[in-house]
Amino acid sequence: MSTPEATAPGSAPALSRIPRPSTALLTDKYELTMLEAALGNGTANRRCVFEVFTRRLPAGRRYGVLAGTGRLLESLEDFRFGPAELDWLAAEGVVDDTTLDFLAGYRFTGSITGYAEGEAFFPQSPVLVVEGTFAEAVLLETLALSILNHDSAVASAASRMTSAAVNRPCLEMGSRRAHEQAAVAAARAAAVAGFAGTSNLEAGRRYGIPTIGTAAHAFTLLHDDEEAAFAAQVAAAGPGTTLLVDTYDVRAGVERAVAAAGTGLGAVRLDSGDLGVLAQEVRAQLDDLGARGTRIVVTSDLDEYAIAALAAAPVDSYGVGTSVVTGSGAPTCGMVYKLVAREGRSGEMEPVAKTSRAKAGTGGRKAAARRLGPDGRAVEEVLVTGTDAEVCAWVSQEDSLRALQAPLVVDGVVDPAWTGKEGLLRATERHRASRDELPRGARRLSADEAAVPTVTLHLGG
Amino acid sequence: MSTPEATAPGSAPALSRIPRPSTALLTDKYELTMLEAALGNGTANRRCVFEVFTRRLPAGRRYGVLAGTGRLLESLEDFRFGPAELDWLAAEGVVDDTTLDFLAGYRFTGSITGYAEGEAFFPQSPVLVVEGTFAEAVLLETLALSILNHDSAVASAASRMTSAAVNRPCLEMGSRRAHEQAAVAAARAAAVAGFAGTSNLEAGRRYGIPTIGTAAHAFTLLHDDEEAAFAAQVAAAGPGTTLLVDTYDVRAGVERAVAAAGTGLGAVRLDSGDLGVLAQEVRAQLDDLGARGTRIVVTSDLDEYAIAALAAAPVDSYGVGTSVVTGSGAPTCGMVYKLVAREGRSGEMEPVAKTSRAKAGTGGRKAAARRLGPDGRAVEEVLVTGTDAEVCAWVSQEDSLRALQAPLVVDGVVDPAWTGKEGLLRATERHRASRDELPRGARRLSADEAAVPTVTLHLGG
Repeated sequence: MSTPEATAPGSAPALSRIPRPSTALLTDKYELTMLEAALGNGTANRRCVFEVFTRRLPAGRRYGVLAGTGRLLESLEDFRFGPAELDWLAAEGVVDDTTLDFLAGYRFTGSITGYAEGEAFFPQSPVLVVEGTFAEAVLLETLALSILNHDSAVASAASRMTSAAVNRPCLEMGSRRAHEQAAVAAARAAAVAGFAGTSNLEAGRRYGIPTIGTAAHAFTLLHDDEEAAFAAQVAAAGPGTTLLVDTYDVRAGVERAVAAAGTGLGAVRLDSGDLGVLAQEVRAQLDDLGARGTRIVVTSDLDEYAIAALAAAPVDSYGVGTSVVTGSGAPTCGMVYKLVAREGRSGEMEPVAKTSRAKAGTGGRKAAARRLGPDGRAVEEVLVTGTDAEVCAWVSQEDSLRALQAPLVVDGVVDPAWTGKEGLLRATERHRASRDELPRGARRLSADEAAVPTVTLHLGG
Repeated sequence: MSTPEATAPGSAPALSRIPRPSTALLTDKYELTMLEAALGNGTANRRCVFEVFTRRLPAGRRYGVLAGTGRLLESLEDFRFGPAELDWLAAEGVVDDTTLDFLAGYRFTGSITGYAEGEAFFPQSPVLVVEGTFAEAVLLETLALSILNHDSAVASAASRMTSAAVNRPCLEMGSRRAHEQAAVAAARAAAVAGFAGTSNLEAGRRYGIPTIGTAAHAFTLLHDDEEAAFAAQVAAAGPGTTLLVDTYDVRAGVERAVAAAGTGLGAVRLDSGDLGVLAQEVRAQLDDLGARGTRIVVTSDLDEYAIAALAAAPVDSYGVGTSVVTGSGAPTCGMVYKLVAREGRSGEMEPVAKTSRAKAGTGGRKAAARRLGPDGRAVEEVLVTGTDAEVCAWVSQEDSLRALQAPLVVDGVVDPAWTGKEGLLRATERHRASRDELPRGARRLSADEAAVPTVTLHLGG
């Protein structure tokens, strides 16, 4: 089995100037009440293994894209119960004094392994594995799921869009359709899946994503006529700018745009109407005017299907808003955070799982690998349970497997290579490689089953 | 015409202990590039009116619920370009030095009126009206839309759920399916629409929403058997706690729950399976065991339809996760921020609107009122354009209208009555009253048109 890519020497994320409040109360209350009860009877110190996975992909989707790992690791460093948090918990009587004392000193000292950010995942893929005492691991459930479910939903949709766009750039413009902080995370998740830029300035500042955007209809309407608006924009931004030409009449708008900027006009943007037909007309008009190098940017409720439908139209880039930030029909992933093994009365680790009729689980920590066929493409997601020795022995016999889990946090120390701007670049690279490795049919947009089956092997007893 | 409810004497929101970073870069780049161009030719100082409205409700929905106004006003106070923001904009060359100077001194000094938070809205309802110079008003587009689109999507879905639940409490438990900060806002928006509690601790701290939750399956699995888990929870939380009984076998779980807590057990939670049938069985079992006062809480992928389907089941409260935080199929509203009037060359205010084929708008500032029938129920959303004098004269002739717009910000000063915990309570009250005023059929869950038509009257010329 080949090993996951080696950890590059990391630099700390460049977030020092952005205020970073505690993330500790971004948590469901029951994590604290469970902690209190477990501190009460001593089970809080039992070693535990929690796994994050999804039971199924959204209907019709062929793969998911893991995103948010870097953000989770950054947030983990801010997961601290300071005086403001403790005072509020005390005043509300959420937990007892013993628990407050524990929280005051809380630092996650366990280990986290996971799929590399950007990796494709399938049902049951253990994309994150958290190991530590019950007390330290149970508190991370909500934060881990919030970040991974949101960011992976966006990246999973975004990957279908960049796939449909082939080599044309996709630009993320959906901030206005998302919670204001979720918008920043969505821009980042879209970048993981290959989006080339974002309209969101904070995403530019925080993650180094190229920012894009020039003007809205309001700018044209502000002026007494379109000529004055275009002249003002070209004066400020130069002829290489993008002029929005559909405020009044598109044909007249294109003519005025070229008149204002000359044939070196950077681009025109179309934000309404039948974009395929319009793009053809505008391309012909631009060429007739001698503006052969002027590009055409289309926006207006695009999704992966609309992008695919424009493949034959003379479009140079796609601005995508609502559909990417809302996951194009699947606004969250169904990832869960489940206890799969814990120290028992004997002191040995034991697999555990819910066993009642619905939502039954598979106990035991799972090692994960992707089996590749002779052509280097994925054929199977392989999950293996067993003792460490059994898993090692089994793995050494196989050479068609690519291991999927890598260390992210070791004894409480976050590997900075997964965080910040560097982490994002790495995730983008990983996604590109992971998607290229999927079976050819995986990129079809039509509804179908997961692109590869997930197989679970139970070694030993 | 009756006037909107008088502004209560306000107290500042109790957020002083929570770090509040600048919100100024939660903005699309084009707002800054438009500002730069408008500063360049002097149009930046033109008086402008921007309206926020949606062109249509999500398919089949009968009304929307405005939420987020309080959060927007709080965020407006933090919309400041400090050294960190300005340095980054300068380093990236986003705008020129003149624009940076303007941003350094930026304070919104205009006025904002809007529908009261919690109010029902319909297509074209001008839920927010921002008046000021182009320079100061254009910058708020993304922040305003992000907050209102997200929060209103959640509140609009949540209102259908509390409506379907009739008098049974709905509890918000969806944090893990939403971006970690969006989760806090979602808990707040659900509370606007009548949810009685949230699992999210930060929402409890920030907004005073009651927090709920006791234990997950992990807590039962942590222990060597279910008896030990229940004993630990009852020891910590008392017999009034809620025990999760579906980890292994529900019937055995209920028996052990009553054995652990006695017949005074507060509640049992069912998180899987056929909830309607299970609830019947569990109710009968609890009653047989003498635990007649023990309540039944159901969770597990509930939405408004599932809640309605459980109306006849012996369920005491509904825990709702994914569907409420993701807007139950409509994860964002389609609200837009459109320039509808601006000072022209002459110095007079002039209506403006996009006029090309698609997305054409209606120019001019709109006054809004809800026309009520003889039974006090809404029959029409009335929007009126005209001069102030014309609108006043028209309004004075009518006594069946309830005015919908109230001042939120006057000359740059936020009315604190709309913000913080007080603002949330007010919004919750407003929603209750607004929904009660809708036509009876408005609360049906089946797909249909908007509950009342929107009528636009153009007075005068």
